[in-house]
Amino acid sequence: MTTFENMANALRFLSVDAIEKANSGHPGMPLGMADAATVLFTKFIKINPRAPKWFDRDRFVLSAGHGSMLLYSLLYLLGYEDISLDDIKSFRQLGSKTAGHPEYGHLAGIDMTTGPLGQGISSAVGMALAERLINARFGDELCNHYTYVINGDGCLMEGISEEAASLAGHLKLNKLIVLWDNNNITIDGTVDKANSTDQLKRFQAMGWNTFEADGHQGESIEKAILAAQHSDKPSLISVRTIIGFGAPNKQGTSKCHGSPLGAEETALLRENLKWQNAPFDIPQDILSAWRDAGKRSEKAYEDWCESAKAAGQNFKDFIENVLPQNWDKALQDLKVEMINQKTKVASRKASQMCLEKIVPHIPQIVGGSADLAASNLTFVEGMKTVTAADYAGNNVMYGIREHAMGALMNGMALHGGVIPYGGTFFVFSDYMRPSMRLAALMGLRVIYVMTHDSIGVGEDGPTHQPVEHLASYRAMPNMNVFRPCDAVETAECWQLALENESGPSILALSRQNLPLLRTAAKENLCAKGAYVISDVGTNKVRQVTLLATGSEVSLGLEAQKLLAEKGIAAAVVSMPCWELFEKQGQAYQKAVLGDVPCVAVEAGARFGWERYAQAFVCMECFGASGKGEALYAHFSITAEAVAEAAQRLLKA
Amino acid sequence: MTTFENMANALRFLSVDAIEKANSGHPGMPLGMADAATVLFTKFIKINPRAPKWFDRDRFVLSAGHGSMLLYSLLYLLGYEDISLDDIKSFRQLGSKTAGHPEYGHLAGIDMTTGPLGQGISSAVGMALAERLINARFGDELCNHYTYVINGDGCLMEGISEEAASLAGHLKLNKLIVLWDNNNITIDGTVDKANSTDQLKRFQAMGWNTFEADGHQGESIEKAILAAQHSDKPSLISVRTIIGFGAPNKQGTSKCHGSPLGAEETALLRENLKWQNAPFDIPQDILSAWRDAGKRSEKAYEDWCESAKAAGQNFKDFIENVLPQNWDKALQDLKVEMINQKTKVASRKASQMCLEKIVPHIPQIVGGSADLAASNLTFVEGMKTVTAADYAGNNVMYGIREHAMGALMNGMALHGGVIPYGGTFFVFSDYMRPSMRLAALMGLRVIYVMTHDSIGVGEDGPTHQPVEHLASYRAMPNMNVFRPCDAVETAECWQLALENESGPSILALSRQNLPLLRTAAKENLCAKGAYVISDVGTNKVRQVTLLATGSEVSLGLEAQKLLAEKGIAAAVVSMPCWELFEKQGQAYQKAVLGDVPCVAVEAGARFGWERYAQAFVCMECFGASGKGEALYAHFSITAEAVAEAAQRLLKA
Repeated sequence: MTTFENMANALRFLSVDAIEKANSGHPGMPLGMADAATVLFTKFIKINPRAPKWFDRDRFVLSAGHGSMLLYSLLYLLGYEDISLDDIKSFRQLGSKTAGHPEYGHLAGIDMTTGPLGQGISSAVGMALAERLINARFGDELCNHYTYVINGDGCLMEGISEEAASLAGHLKLNKLIVLWDNNNITIDGTVDKANSTDQLKRFQAMGWNTFEADGHQGESIEKAILAAQHSDKPSLISVRTIIGFGAPNKQGTSKCHGSPLGAEETALLRENLKWQNAPFDIPQDILSAWRDAGKRSEKAYEDWCESAKAAGQNFKDFIENVLPQNWDKALQDLKVEMINQKTKVASRKASQMCLEKIVPHIPQIVGGSADLAASNLTFVEGMKTVTAADYAGNNVMYGIREHAMGALMNGMALHGGVIPYGGTFFVFSDYMRPSMRLAALMGLRVIYVMTHDSIGVGEDGPTHQPVEHLASYRAMPNMNVFRPCDAVETAECWQLALENESGPSILALSRQNLPLLRTAAKENLCAKGAYVISDVGTNKVRQVTLLATGSEVSLGLEAQKLLAEKGIAAAVVSMPCWELFEKQGQAYQKAVLGDVPCVAVEAGARFGWERYAQAFVCMECFGASGKGEALYAHFSITAEAVAEAAQRLLKA
Repeated sequence: MTTFENMANALRFLSVDAIEKANSGHPGMPLGMADAATVLFTKFIKINPRAPKWFDRDRFVLSAGHGSMLLYSLLYLLGYEDISLDDIKSFRQLGSKTAGHPEYGHLAGIDMTTGPLGQGISSAVGMALAERLINARFGDELCNHYTYVINGDGCLMEGISEEAASLAGHLKLNKLIVLWDNNNITIDGTVDKANSTDQLKRFQAMGWNTFEADGHQGESIEKAILAAQHSDKPSLISVRTIIGFGAPNKQGTSKCHGSPLGAEETALLRENLKWQNAPFDIPQDILSAWRDAGKRSEKAYEDWCESAKAAGQNFKDFIENVLPQNWDKALQDLKVEMINQKTKVASRKASQMCLEKIVPHIPQIVGGSADLAASNLTFVEGMKTVTAADYAGNNVMYGIREHAMGALMNGMALHGGVIPYGGTFFVFSDYMRPSMRLAALMGLRVIYVMTHDSIGVGEDGPTHQPVEHLASYRAMPNMNVFRPCDAVETAECWQLALENESGPSILALSRQNLPLLRTAAKENLCAKGAYVISDVGTNKVRQVTLLATGSEVSLGLEAQKLLAEKGIAAAVVSMPCWELFEKQGQAYQKAVLGDVPCVAVEAGARFGWERYAQAFVCMECFGASGKGEALYAHFSITAEAVAEAAQRLLKA
């Protein structure tokens, strides 16, 4: 046995034995890709197991996340201190660091949560883009690294990867290197049962260089990666492998993809690969060879630390996504100005006014839109669009690729040194929902500028009018959904989104103009999620509460007047963010809601409002094509309807 | 002016004048594609305006749905009786047939609702597949037509179209012909700002033939379409056009994409194209030429009617998606057998047992899975997989392409003669959500077999465990979400899904085994959405109601026992489908819920349950990796937790 074979087999058996012990997992990929991973991690990758978060490390994304044991085995063998043999032995058990799929934050050395196919390779494009953006700003000594991906056929068949790959080609992200585990097997059988695409030709058409390697020949793999490192374009390496390599009865078939090999086949694998060690027993010489590989970049790390030190606190703050002191002063001033001017604009326009005050003060901001910049108003003067010829920009033209935009933003946020926001119509957030879910799961600071947030869209009709979207994201854990009612609230929600380091935010913004409702700017009232924006008159006792968000808060205020005419004392609550409101104490919640009946008004699905209200002026069906005002009347989302609902409720 | 030019200009000016009148709409595409559309609709397409639903007509999908006025102009000029000049004059007004984007069902001649980019071309693949499937069954005389698509760059950049196009190439759907409005413009500017892909090469890599045409030269377009008609693969025609053709100051730029040209530019367009007619005035000779074109296929239609008549009632029922008489007898028998056998299986397995009784009895069924057939259990003995060599099958291997699966199922349902179902893990329904929304909006009978429906997934962890999904689809209008609690309910939900002709259904099914809870099979208890599955004992008065769905109904029953031990009389309600329950009368709803406090138990987000319950045993965060049972305990979704919640609620 050569050292290379032994090292690769160490990966194989740690993986297979952990899967056997868990009686759950995916052995086929670690067995098939062990050779390629050994080459990549012993000859190429720049990492430091003793500094897993080293900013200038190469990024590694296991896009085929079901092969998680390959990654855990690598991290253990390379000497990451966060993982022990016991962690490997508790693979897939509740509370262990070694989850079924790699979970970002559970274990040092995991650069991204993967599992949902196509997400890894697509976020890797975002990482590779972030690397170039920061390189353009700080130079080679501080930021100059590769992004490596391992993925299978699944990732290549998912549409999201097409979107991201075509963008990578367009932007010539030549430090992105994808190793395609080309084993010709998917869960349901051989690839040719469902796909006949010439992948290399397809990637060439998207502006990639492509290479081929024998995935079980170290030299062949090495040669391909070396060539890819010198490519002027992103690189796809077709690594031809045998899934389940070495398992005599299951290799080359989907049988070894998603289930343990079983005791018998594992014994045969041992025999076949001449691995005579007990489960989890890695001979010292093999372990030493791996640990040495883990030290390959120590010098590079030390050099970088020197450079980083020399670059000073600004660089440190930058890469750690620290917001500059007083970054929000201009935004605060804007709020005061808006109140003075009674700024009556669409909240998407207010958002743009905020961005004018935010973008110049937060260097990590990278904005963009999925080909709707002129509608989402995500671009502001002074921004510069990133191109393949010049990465020194802070605006990305994502094209008509919502899903890639979501994934790239995840990758940039994971990389560090970037706080991304991206825009599209709210209704088309559906296209990037899988990436948004991952942002929420990983707790990433990603901001979605979702304009055209209701039937207020008007003539474009029901395909363009979100109805169920507010509810559908409120149901998603760790996603803050903001729907500001006017320009001032828009500024406040932007601030909250930017200051939330542990999760993504949606800003749901109107197409149509909204009156300015706020009268004071000092306190960020949106921070508590909901507040009384207009109380009952002095000496009145509240009889009913009108709960509203966004464009419907003004309807609540009109209804308040109608009710006052009938002698009914109503308070109006603006509720821009349910999630933050839920985090307040019961006393605050009670004070806001009042101990009275509540009517909810929102030009979105009623679904979920039962938590707070007993009567509803909401959508119960899809929208329609027509003028915005006509639609509000048609669907009875009016001040009159709110007042009537309140009266009915009080009578009941 | 040649007749051809006049006919094309008739399309142009009807479109532009309607957009001017509405002061809203997208003139660029109708102006640019008018020549190509004139060639397609006067020389090639097989339709009969007097029989818009003719089964063997060519299908036409305006994937670039924002160009809706092009389609409305075509339908009017060709002589569709459902559309008048007045309809065109009321473009984009509330209640008109001529909505902002083409809405299926609003106007005869619209083969699909389009607007969300990529959906049209992808569903067209489903239509073209349906055509081949039915051709294989009934022959050329009854089913032999083309599917034409017009789309722009947006549709080609969306990942969904990659998924669908690669599947079309794999299946060699050579009667699919896509006209790519290659105008080099997207909303944010020239295409090269965001994309550098060589589209022809990419489509070639996916197994398509590609052609090029000058989009303003009739002969060039004609030649390309003719060649495409004789292709052995699906065809992409690059139709090079000038967006906004003829508008001197706006053509060739994104300025004419999404806003009316304005009075001045419209006047200049008239001058430039030498169109001297008043708005909406189409000279009789031009109208006659168009009306004649509308009659081109009258003979073909009559021949087909003869053939269809000869084919008899079976064929008629087939293409009208009529379910055969007594199709459900075997399914009913299965329910009885399940009760007798106390069948304890996962509901995904129960679903497969149902399919064994359904598939042989409904000839229009076309099943499939996105590479998870062995997990979704969507394939049953006797099914045959569709291949390029043999379309006489009823199972589609969609590959790892959830979004394309969703879109293809829409296309097949729209085509008629197919009742599609497709499977993936419930959590990955996110990937096809935009297509599911369109199915709901169009009211299509599409069935989603969504297995692995909760934390019961176990070790695969949070990326694979749906949490917010039930809520997110319950919030979507016209989507029936079924979550059966045992094998018998699974059969009942399948029946309800199949019998709902006006909307899609989700079957959320467990990975893990579920005990058989039902004791009687006669009535379809799921039809009312919720029912008392276990009442309080005789002579007891109900004190609390335990509401549950799916795998948690058995927890409700266990909790009922725990409560009985404490002297508390609880009724257990199984609630497999909220949407159907909402359709029941108040009396029924009250009888089921009881006039008592309610506890909801569901291993999904609590969001929305406030409609029915006051206490919740639900998920409040993402899941985790671990054994399914361990996760239920960890997240406190247990019978004990339900009993405790009920006791607390009664005390409060």
